[in-house]
Amino acid sequence: MRYVVGIDLGGTNIVVGTVAEDGSELHGLVSEPTMPEQGSAAVVARIVKLARASLAEARGKTVAGVGIGSPGPLDTARGLVLLTPNLGWTNFPLRDRITEALGLPATLDNDANCAIFGEWWRGAARGAEHVVGLTIGTGIGGGIVLHGEIYHGTSDIAGEIGHMTIDSTGRRCKCGNYGCLEAYASGPAIAARAVEGVEAGAETSLPDYVRGDLRQITAQVVYEAAHDGDEYAREVVHDTAKVLGAGVANIINIFNPQVVVICGGVTLAGDQLFVPLRSEVKRRAFKPAANACRIVPGELTGTAGVYGAAAVFMRRTWGRP
Amino acid sequence: MRYVVGIDLGGTNIVVGTVAEDGSELHGLVSEPTMPEQGSAAVVARIVKLARASLAEARGKTVAGVGIGSPGPLDTARGLVLLTPNLGWTNFPLRDRITEALGLPATLDNDANCAIFGEWWRGAARGAEHVVGLTIGTGIGGGIVLHGEIYHGTSDIAGEIGHMTIDSTGRRCKCGNYGCLEAYASGPAIAARAVEGVEAGAETSLPDYVRGDLRQITAQVVYEAAHDGDEYAREVVHDTAKVLGAGVANIINIFNPQVVVICGGVTLAGDQLFVPLRSEVKRRAFKPAANACRIVPGELTGTAGVYGAAAVFMRRTWGRP
Repeated sequence: MRYVVGIDLGGTNIVVGTVAEDGSELHGLVSEPTMPEQGSAAVVARIVKLARASLAEARGKTVAGVGIGSPGPLDTARGLVLLTPNLGWTNFPLRDRITEALGLPATLDNDANCAIFGEWWRGAARGAEHVVGLTIGTGIGGGIVLHGEIYHGTSDIAGEIGHMTIDSTGRRCKCGNYGCLEAYASGPAIAARAVEGVEAGAETSLPDYVRGDLRQITAQVVYEAAHDGDEYAREVVHDTAKVLGAGVANIINIFNPQVVVICGGVTLAGDQLFVPLRSEVKRRAFKPAANACRIVPGELTGTAGVYGAAAVFMRRTWGRP
Repeated sequence: MRYVVGIDLGGTNIVVGTVAEDGSELHGLVSEPTMPEQGSAAVVARIVKLARASLAEARGKTVAGVGIGSPGPLDTARGLVLLTPNLGWTNFPLRDRITEALGLPATLDNDANCAIFGEWWRGAARGAEHVVGLTIGTGIGGGIVLHGEIYHGTSDIAGEIGHMTIDSTGRRCKCGNYGCLEAYASGPAIAARAVEGVEAGAETSLPDYVRGDLRQITAQVVYEAAHDGDEYAREVVHDTAKVLGAGVANIINIFNPQVVVICGGVTLAGDQLFVPLRSEVKRRAFKPAANACRIVPGELTGTAGVYGAAAVFMRRTWGRP
């Protein structure tokens, strides 16, 4: 059995683990904050330290290489991070830096692609031929797996599903466009919509969750209040489901996939999100396409990106999984 | 040199031609109205008559088979038309009926897929690896060609790009959804939006083009008036461009294709459509994805579906083009 180190580099956290080639084992799962403000050298040093810690727990095993998942846009063939606003990098040779430091061959792919490929390999979309996934957190990323392969597009930037316009005259998005899915359903967008309502006088217990400091309302606080029965928080979750439903219906009409997998903190909202989401999709999508598709939360919470990054290395090096 | 009959079956017209395997020749291009109200047997008889007329003009040549493009949804493997509201058919074995009548093997694929595959093979998207196309007429169809292959999805119904929601609380679409691209930018939708404005008192010469009978305003009448300098008609075309721009930006963000090709009557509007369309895309899409993509009108006016249907037969039978 061979093993591959999977690295999931995010704007907030780095997660690393060592994965068996059949996906049956995950050793040395370790994590630290990214702290991008310390610069690229410090972030690379932190990644390398975590990889060594993970490798130490996999001692005695044959480790063949390293798969890296990173925010993009990337040049996957040359192993470059072309630009990441979150990390502040430009044309950064991340793959080669990691290879030099660890003495192992490495591959680089987009973080959302890796997460969805991980869910395809070992998670909620296992065995499906065509999968489209969303990773919902600070932003909304997308990953597209067609015929069991990550679809990259012409210049490695396919899958920006979070920046699909669903309301052409709607909310301004950080990307400059109006009415993107991300402008309504990312974590910060859910929180912002909730706060807007509170400020407009909605009857809700939300302020009690943050001692009256509305800036501290996060999407997670909204889910918590919704779970506790707060009607207004439930409405915010419900509106999120409707907006996501329009986006997922688009995905289903365009891709006719077997599975749409939704990953990230938003899945904490559970059935309060997924029940109205599925019914909104039913209302909007073509019936045969909707019937052919399962809409499910990701199963590999916190590790999808690690599994997927390792799987990308394996696929490119060995042709499988 | 071998030849293949390409059949483009539409709700309004049937177009048939005989295509050389290298795409360099098209013989016996013939067409007749579909007249679906006469029933499936009459339509099949008309297709067969047209195919024989086309074959007669290709006399002496080796004809290997027939490619059929049809409205869907289809079961391409079994050669069935599962359902077409336009033709009124259910589970109709179109492929085998044609094979029996002509004594030639046949393949079946979706009409929009065929048109875009035709443009990929011999038209505006020649040589591109990833192409997404729209066919804009009575409805808006979509075709997706990835890695030079038509993408069909899980159950042959991928590519319903016309039913992408771009305004989640917008105009009702015939499909039951709200705010679909088709509800704004199909031929009848363009005409309907124009008429609404006239009825609301817009200053325009449009009624003069139809002797005051507003029911006769078609999209083509709108383009004509726009060409002639009617400000209101120009505004309707411009609004169409903006709406299409939102849809095309979504396609570019999702697929990162090399080419988006736009086929159908709407291309008659020329630069009055394409100039604002491209600038709307620039405003909305991710810059590197937009820069990587050409947005072009189809080149095979009236024959894209014939070329593409024949090419589908060739690909499935000979592995190319």
